[in-house]
This record gives sequence, structure tokens and C-alpha cells, in this order.
Amino acid sequence: MAKNIVEKILDEHIITGTPKAGEEVGIRVDQTLTQDATGTMACLQFEALGFSKVKTDVSVSYVDHNTIQEGFENADDHRYLETVAAKHGIKFSKPGNGICHQVHLERFGVPGKTLLGSDSHTPTGGGIGMIAIGAGGLDVAVAMGGGPFYMKYPRVVKVELEGALKPWVSAKDVILALLEILSTKGNVGTIVEYGGSGVAGLSVPERATITNMGAELGVTTSVFPSDEKTRAFMVAQGREEGFREISADPGAEYDRVIKIDLSTLKTRAACPHSPGNVKTLQELKGTRVDQVLIGSCTNASYRDIMMVASLLKGKKISPEVTLGVACGSRQVLEMVSRNGALADIIASGARILESACGFCIGNSVAPKTDAVSVRTSNRNFFGRSGTSSADVYLTSPEAAVASALSAELCDPQEYFSDVPYPQIDMPSEFVIDDSMILEPSDNPESIEVYRGPNIGDPPSNDPCPETLNTSVAIKVGDKITTDHIMPAGNRLKYRSNIPKYAEFVFEREDPEFSSNALKNKNEGLHNVIIGGESYGQGSSREHAAICPMYLGVKVVVARSIERIHRANLINFGIIPATFENEKDYDSLQKGDSLVIENVRKAVESNQPLVAKRTSDGAQITLEIDFTDREKEMILAGGLINATKLKQ
Amino acid sequence: MAKNIVEKILDEHIITGTPKAGEEVGIRVDQTLTQDATGTMACLQFEALGFSKVKTDVSVSYVDHNTIQEGFENADDHRYLETVAAKHGIKFSKPGNGICHQVHLERFGVPGKTLLGSDSHTPTGGGIGMIAIGAGGLDVAVAMGGGPFYMKYPRVVKVELEGALKPWVSAKDVILALLEILSTKGNVGTIVEYGGSGVAGLSVPERATITNMGAELGVTTSVFPSDEKTRAFMVAQGREEGFREISADPGAEYDRVIKIDLSTLKTRAACPHSPGNVKTLQELKGTRVDQVLIGSCTNASYRDIMMVASLLKGKKISPEVTLGVACGSRQVLEMVSRNGALADIIASGARILESACGFCIGNSVAPKTDAVSVRTSNRNFFGRSGTSSADVYLTSPEAAVASALSAELCDPQEYFSDVPYPQIDMPSEFVIDDSMILEPSDNPESIEVYRGPNIGDPPSNDPCPETLNTSVAIKVGDKITTDHIMPAGNRLKYRSNIPKYAEFVFEREDPEFSSNALKNKNEGLHNVIIGGESYGQGSSREHAAICPMYLGVKVVVARSIERIHRANLINFGIIPATFENEKDYDSLQKGDSLVIENVRKAVESNQPLVAKRTSDGAQITLEIDFTDREKEMILAGGLINATKLKQ
Repeated sequence: MAKNIVEKILDEHIITGTPKAGEEVGIRVDQTLTQDATGTMACLQFEALGFSKVKTDVSVSYVDHNTIQEGFENADDHRYLETVAAKHGIKFSKPGNGICHQVHLERFGVPGKTLLGSDSHTPTGGGIGMIAIGAGGLDVAVAMGGGPFYMKYPRVVKVELEGALKPWVSAKDVILALLEILSTKGNVGTIVEYGGSGVAGLSVPERATITNMGAELGVTTSVFPSDEKTRAFMVAQGREEGFREISADPGAEYDRVIKIDLSTLKTRAACPHSPGNVKTLQELKGTRVDQVLIGSCTNASYRDIMMVASLLKGKKISPEVTLGVACGSRQVLEMVSRNGALADIIASGARILESACGFCIGNSVAPKTDAVSVRTSNRNFFGRSGTSSADVYLTSPEAAVASALSAELCDPQEYFSDVPYPQIDMPSEFVIDDSMILEPSDNPESIEVYRGPNIGDPPSNDPCPETLNTSVAIKVGDKITTDHIMPAGNRLKYRSNIPKYAEFVFEREDPEFSSNALKNKNEGLHNVIIGGESYGQGSSREHAAICPMYLGVKVVVARSIERIHRANLINFGIIPATFENEKDYDSLQKGDSLVIENVRKAVESNQPLVAKRTSDGAQITLEIDFTDREKEMILAGGLINATKLKQ
Repeated sequence: MAKNIVEKILDEHIITGTPKAGEEVGIRVDQTLTQDATGTMACLQFEALGFSKVKTDVSVSYVDHNTIQEGFENADDHRYLETVAAKHGIKFSKPGNGICHQVHLERFGVPGKTLLGSDSHTPTGGGIGMIAIGAGGLDVAVAMGGGPFYMKYPRVVKVELEGALKPWVSAKDVILALLEILSTKGNVGTIVEYGGSGVAGLSVPERATITNMGAELGVTTSVFPSDEKTRAFMVAQGREEGFREISADPGAEYDRVIKIDLSTLKTRAACPHSPGNVKTLQELKGTRVDQVLIGSCTNASYRDIMMVASLLKGKKISPEVTLGVACGSRQVLEMVSRNGALADIIASGARILESACGFCIGNSVAPKTDAVSVRTSNRNFFGRSGTSSADVYLTSPEAAVASALSAELCDPQEYFSDVPYPQIDMPSEFVIDDSMILEPSDNPESIEVYRGPNIGDPPSNDPCPETLNTSVAIKVGDKITTDHIMPAGNRLKYRSNIPKYAEFVFEREDPEFSSNALKNKNEGLHNVIIGGESYGQGSSREHAAICPMYLGVKVVVARSIERIHRANLINFGIIPATFENEKDYDSLQKGDSLVIENVRKAVESNQPLVAKRTSDGAQITLEIDFTDREKEMILAGGLINATKLKQ
């Protein structure tokens, strides 16, 4: 039977289940990545599960989120990560070595392999022909230990690329166009597979920009074919031996096919406050710009930084603008520092920021009040920049440079109308130096894992009771991201200290949430969260489940719940449910008392839960839909409990 | 009469008073510098005093302290500084352009001129033959408005340098040797003047390292002659027209002469937790090192970064160590990015940090718990790194590189015994590009000063009452720095918001201090602070006076009080006093009620204050010694009140 790329790769990796869209399958995970924000908890869980050595082909622990380190907490976590990696067979990428997705693509990505990462932008690996999926840290911990990753076998949407991009239109504009078509919701359980004659014109890093920001579609992942461009990239990275050609068979079937003629694409931007709020730059031109930030896992490859340098060379940015440039990896930084491009960027008036997540997660260069910030990153959620009143626009590097030079949003085609579009050739050899990636110890018994005062044990949970006496602890609107649930920025330093980090759950939505929920818990009440559409979108941060669990949250009822977050909730024994009757969302209010009886029975049989409101006796039907494996976890009070029950 | 350099420069600038050691003189200020941590308050005060345009030769407002910007507050302050500078004739150095002292030396320093800066390391300018003095922001605001700077006419200590430094011994070792001789206290009212045949062998940046860290001696400032090396530096900076030769007349007199034979100096480090706790590296060798940070206003010149690059070239740092390198200015960064040195540093495994104060003020790369951190900066006060349990050692760049390569403290002479000492030639032309220094507006009326929600008005104070009913709000030990009084790091973002920042006064010493002091104030009690030796040393941060003023502190009694802090206290109407009987320090306790009568009369006549303890009637005599100008300020409740009384 003719297979598409997704089927080819997944079918080679299925351990349990039937490869049929919507059915749960367990797949073998070849590679994992973790980063410091999620990785400390993942590694603590890896230890709690009792594994001694990773069983993957390769597992890499990156430090890229909290490299600024105010206070000892982050530095302690880094040292914990370094030692736990050395002990358990994990490679450790030191702070300063770059952003996990960029480095992984450069140094570890292998076509046809599966990659599970505790970061929602793990699909970056799809650019090199991997099935690369973001998941919660606990799922990654299990995969590191050799366990399968469970997922719904996906629907596959083919995006057929034709033609070639016009000058000044680049990879970012491709994914922005697709976000305009597919939007950020309704794509759960889907993998986007790219194909068509237009693929050959895109380099691996350009493809990675597209699959990276594909995460904003809410899909499971995105994947490109592996072809001669892929081979060339791997040769230039000194890794040709891993190359394998992968393409869809003629006649392969898809659930949907979307055709995009690259030659017709216009330059675009995602407008505040959603990556799906896309407009053309022609529509936006003239908007005043205060700050321009180039970098992140989306657009900070060698190709991107060379493009930026070429456009800035000999020019000065507007005095009105602050421009920051962060290379995606140390490889990129070293190469542009060797070839003079970095000097051109510095001479233009740019600030050089560290090769790390930095501004993208709101822990540096937050803009001023009411500022307009143009960024090459992938998310512009409300408040994510660190400044609630700021408007963030997401564009290509080309458009970002035009904004930095002109202090307004503009179409680079128009702004650079008298400039030839720079031709950025991929190097035939990248500078290869993995000295900032520490190999695991040859003598793991000798390694003492460092645990500073910021490292706590993961909190435990009780099995699911038969009756839940609950209180609605908060009611939130649509598109609540994991950033809303668990603030990032400076707060992330508490990621290994759940009682402390839990103080900040829904900090911006309701500063009293944490103390009220804990009060309910201490009084024997369970907490319920009421959410709208796409609850839990954004980052894969599993703290958005762990910390609510710690605060006694047992049920999240929402209009819809995003995939990774739903899995995280289940992993920590919280019931994700949706409304049978959407109007119940409107009638429920904070403080409502809801009694839910026969919970275990309902879960076991996948029957709806019935919540009875104490005040008026109203009955609210909560739909649930669990696989057998998910039922086990919910009943046991989470994956760690369920795993221990089996041991 | 034969004059020394200090006399030559000061006497050209005296407006009022008699040039006699210990007498108060008012001097004309040719240049000012402010930085963002102190500059917002200085500019707010400049505005509050009603000035329209600066009257100095040149005034520059730098942004170098809080360039990380978590949250809108710092970014708002930067925009305030930019607009207030444009309106009032001040140059504005954008974030990313570098550290104020390094940039000022490169682009604005002029031999023979006076420079007043709202930063305690302003003496860096002494390296180019300026009388460069650190002061509180309010003093700088007055100087920007054309007012004199009042100081005690100094005693002058000559440091006679002979011979030449041996390979691997560098400028940092000179000032560390002097700190060993003079210590960090007892040098109030002194200026150190360098001379002797050894001076000619030191470049301007090397001299600046010495005068910069001279601040840790507690002296008013330090100054070098202006000679052919000075001319060469100015020529290379494209500023030869400002050059003027300045040397001491033969037979010039000094209060003390200290001879240092450079050829006999050993490599040294300042050990935890004082710049004056100096040992030789031979004594310290073998101490495990976790972190190495190269940069700061002390040791991040072109010469220093080229030395670092030369030593790192082709080598890899120890995997056990994190190495961060921050160039002192954008000029340095651009030059080393052009000539390949930066690439050598990156290739060694170093992290490139922004050209800013960064780690030195504890707002980034804080070390892990119990870490040993080796730094090229000038201060290693307890907790300043951001990690209270860390031990910080201060060394030369050469020794810091040796530590990064070997993961232990070592003498670079020994560590590099088979390596020729790199010869770093000063460039005949620096890269000159002042595009990140914004000129003031030609049309100041058109400039609207930006005031974000983080910008508050400076708080006001009442005139000094005749009777002070006080409570001892805190009793602290020796060597309390302004960092102890007003924590830096992330707290600095509240610098323009006094009621908020005041919540953190003595945060580490007594977390209840702020609320207790405010409670006393609201109950009509005045607060007294009891201090030990060298109270208020360290940074010139005038918030260490403003915030206590806001909390109702009226008197600081200590064994001794450092110069800049004493001036700041007076500027904000707080009485600085010392014990007549040192044993009274021991008997006083937190919570003691002290009544001080006839305060105004005592101040007017410079008679001691008598504090009567309510509990036992004990009388404690507090010595005061004010000039007429200081009396006016104390009686009026601070400089702003005093200035307004005269208007």
C-alpha cells in the first residue's frame, strides 16, 4: 500500500495499537530532548521511576531557558541537570551552547527517527524528516527509560508546496500563511506533512522554521521529506552516515490536501495576541515600532543570521529602536563571528544577546509600557514578552530588519526595493565543535547527583476517589495558554520547587487562586477549573498540571483542551473533560459547589460525569473519553502512581 | 609653588573655599556621567530643581546596569532617560553601547578636566588624567545644572611606581597590592596620585583599571599623569585635540608617599568577602573554581579582552567551569568581532555576555549554592553575586583565564609557564562609531519627556525638628555596604519608585525593617540606624539615603561613615553622626528609645547631639561635624529643600 511519510516513520515505530486515525498507539522513541525549564522535573521523575540509564539512541539535556540566573536557583538546577545527565547516560548541553531545537537539528537530528521533547517546539526536527513531538516531561522521562510514547494515531494533512518563494518572502511567511488557513485550533490529532515540488527549494533550516512554528497550529507535529537538501545539510554537519531519503509513495493518501503556491505568498506578520492573527505586512505598514528582536528557535539559524547581517551591513538602525540579535546556537555564533557577519550586525547598532531562549520566554529585554515589539519568534501571547501592555508582532528576519531600520512595520519587498535580495548559501561545512556538549560518564557509579536547596521531590497524588466534592476555583476564557496557568519569566526559577511555584498558578488571572485553592484542599474540597476554547495551548510546560495537582485540582472542564496539556493533566491524575452542553460554561461561576459521584465507575466505562450544583441542583454533564491506559492513570492518580502499581 | 597633579587640576576648578586639606571647597564640574540605576533619580531631581539645560561641557546618561529588563519597569526608565536627556542637553548612551566608565574613558575623557558621576567607579577617569569623582545622583543633578560640587579638599597620597610589571602580572595586581597596603578603610578624604618611572609602561586602560578599583580604598579618587601614553590613546580615539600633558611639578608635596616596585609584584586575588582581603595566588592555588566571569568596568578594555582571547585561542575551558565574557563597550566588542578574537573566545567554550554591568551587580549568571566564582570585577561583597553562599575572588584577566582552563585558582605565571606572555599592542586607531550615543535634541521644546507608570516623583522631606523622638530601628555590624542597605539585582528595577523600593531596605539584614520603620514613622517616631565601621561603603547608590528618608530615618550613628554615603545622607536630610564613646555602640540595641533635644541648635553650632535613652536615662554623645552648607541641608531637610529655600 502506498504510504505517506508519517505512516512510513510511525509504522516503523509502533509497539502497541492499530495505525488508524484516532486510535491510541504506543511508539518507540529513538531520541529525546529536554530543556532546563521542563527538564529538571523530567529528570526528577526519571529518577523517581527508578530507571538507571536511558534506553534511547540519544537523549540530550539542554540548558537554554534560564541562562540569566538571578539567584542560585537556576544555577543549582543546571548543576543538577549536568550531574543527573552524567549519571544516567544523557548528553548535557551547557548554557551558552544554544537553543535546544537549533542545536538538536544541527548535531543530532536524523531523518526517519522519532524524537520526543519536553518542549512544544520539538517539531523543529520535522525539518530534517523526523517525527518530532512535544510532550510533558513525565512522558519524556518514561521514553528516556525505554517506555513507549502513547498518542492518537494521527490524521495527516498534506501541504503541497509549489513554485518558489519570491525574494523577500521567506520560510516564516510560509507558516504564517498556513496559520491563516488552518488557524491555531481545531487541528488536534493532526500531523502536517509537506510535499510537492516547492520543497526542494527550501533548506533544512528553512523547513525547520516552518515545522517549528507549526506547533502554533495545535497539531501533533509537522514533517518534511528527507531529500538531497537534507543530505547536504547532514554532510555539512559531518553526519552524512545518518542520512536516509524519505518521501511519500506515489498515491499515498491524506485526510486533506492544502496547496500553497510559494510564488504567490506575501510577507506577513502574526498580530497581537495570537500567532494565528495573521495579516499581510502591506496591511500593517506604518505601525510604529519600538523594539525588534531577532532570534529564538524559529528564526536564528545560520541562514537567518547571515540574512540579517547582509541586510544590516553598512546601515544603522533607527535611533528610536532597540534591536537585539541572538544566534540560535553556538555553532551559528562562532561562524558569524569568524566570517565578519557578527561585526556587521554590531556595527549597525544591534545588541548581541546570548544564544538562548531569552526574550522569547519573557525573561529579558521586556519592552516598555505600550511598546510595539517585532520578533522573529513563534509566540505573541498576551503578556509573554514580560510587558502586559506591549503589542508583539511576529515576522521573518527580513521584515524584522526592515522594521529596525525604519522604526515601523513594513513590507521588506517594498522597503528594500532598491537592494538585491541577499543570496545566503548554506555552508558546505559547518564549524563543528561539540565541546560544550558533555558526554555522560563512563563511570556512572562515581557520579554524585547534585541537589541544591532548590531541588525538591516531585509531589505525590492520591488515587481518584469515587466522589468528588468540588468547588469551582476559577473560571477563565478562551485560549488560556500554559503561560497563563504557570507564568514563565523570572518565576521559572522555581520550576523544581513545586510548593513555591504553585503560589503563582493563574497569577495574572486571579492572584488569590493559589491561596484559595490550597484553602479548599485543606478543608477537604477538590478544586475544579472551568476553561473555554483551546485550554492549555502553548508551551508543553507540565507544571501547568503538576502545580494545580499540588493545589488539589481534580477536574478541568473546558470547551476544548489542547493535546499536550490534556496528556499532562492525565499524567498527573487530573480529569480533563468537556461540556456536553456548551451553555453550561456560561452558567458556571467561581465558587459554585459541585458534587460529582461515581467518578471511578464513570471513568472506567467512559461514561459522562454528572456534576450536581449544590445551590440549585442543576446537573452539568461532563464528557470524558479515555483510552485504557489513560483510565489507569486517572484512577491511580497519575502516571507515576500507575507505573508503581505495576512494579 | 610646586604643585602635584591633584592641586593643579583642583585649583583650576575651585569656585569657593580654601585649598587646604580638610576644608570644604566647591569645584566646577566639567563633565558628568550618570547610569540608569542612579540616573533616573538624578534626572528626576534635575527636573525637580527646575533646570532647563545642562551647563557642563558634556553630560552623558548611560544605560548599563539594568539591560536585562524583566518587566516593563527598566524599559520605561530607559525611555524616560532617553527623552529627558534629549530635552535637557544630555547625550544618551543606549543599552548595549557599553559600561559607562569604559565608554566615557574611550569617547569623552579629557585630561585635566573634572568629572562627577553618579557611580562609585567614576574614578576610572583618573586613568586619563581627570579628577573623576563618584557622588550621589542629587549632587550630580546639581552639577549638571552648573552648581559646584562640594568636597573636602583632599589629602594627597602619592603612589610612586617604579620598574615594570613582570609577564603575567598586570594592572589588577597593582591595585590589589595597594589595597593590601592601604586597606578599604581609613582613607576618607584622600586622593591617590600615581607617579614615578613605572607609569610610562602602563597604557591608559591599565591605568584606568587601577583608578577604577581605587574606589575600594575608600578614597575620593585616584589620578594618573597625562603623558605620551595618554596622547597616543586619545589619538587612537580620534580625540587628540583634547590632549594636554599634566604631571606633578618637581618638588611637589604629598601627605604620604608609597613606593611600589612593579617588577616585584606578585599575582593576587581579593578573597571573600572584601576587595581588601588580598592574598597572593600562590597562597590560594588549588582552590576549586566553578565559575569565571571576565568583564565589568574594571577589566574589560580592548587590552583585557585581547589578552583573554590570546590566552584562550586554541584551548578549551574545563568542562567543570562556566566562563562568561562581557566586553566593556561596544567599541571593544566590535573590534574583537572584526579581528577574530571574539571567535577565539567563543571557540574556547565561553559564553558571550552583553557589554553591560551584568554579573558585577548580581543581576545575571549568579553562581550555584556554595560556588567559587572568579571575577575580574572590583567588588566581592557578601551576596553581591546574587548567591549568598558563594565565594567570589577578584583577579586579573590573566588569572581568570587560568582558572577557567584549570578549574582552580592558580598563579598564571605558573599555569602558563610554557606560554610566552601575549604582547597586546594598543591599536593606533580604535573603531570609532558613536551611533549608539544619541545627541540631545536641537529642538528641546518639541521633546515630551516619557513617564511610564514606573516613574514617580522624588519623595519630599520635612525640615529638621528641634526634638527627635527616636527608636533604634536596626543595629548592623561593620562594613555595611550600600548593597546591604538597598539590594541591587532585580530590585533595582524599582529605583524610580521610592515607596516600592523602600520595601527592601536592609532586606537581607532584617526583612521586617521596612515595615517596622514605616510603622514607627506613622506613629510619629523618628528612626535611628546604628552602624559599625565604614558604614555605607560600596556603590554610590543614593537610594541608600532616599529610601531610609522615606521610611522616617533621621539619624545614622556609626563608628565611621564612608564619604559618598555621608554626603548622600546629608543631601536627604539625614544626620550622619559618630560615637564620641565607641562603647556606646555595644550598649545600644534595636528597639531602644532615644530622645534627642535641641537638635537644630546643636547642628547650627556643630556641638555634639545628646541622645537620652528612655529606659535607663543613659546619655549617648553623638559627634557631628558639618560645613555651613551641610548645616543648611540638614536643617532644611535635604538639598532640594535647601535649594528651594534660596530660590
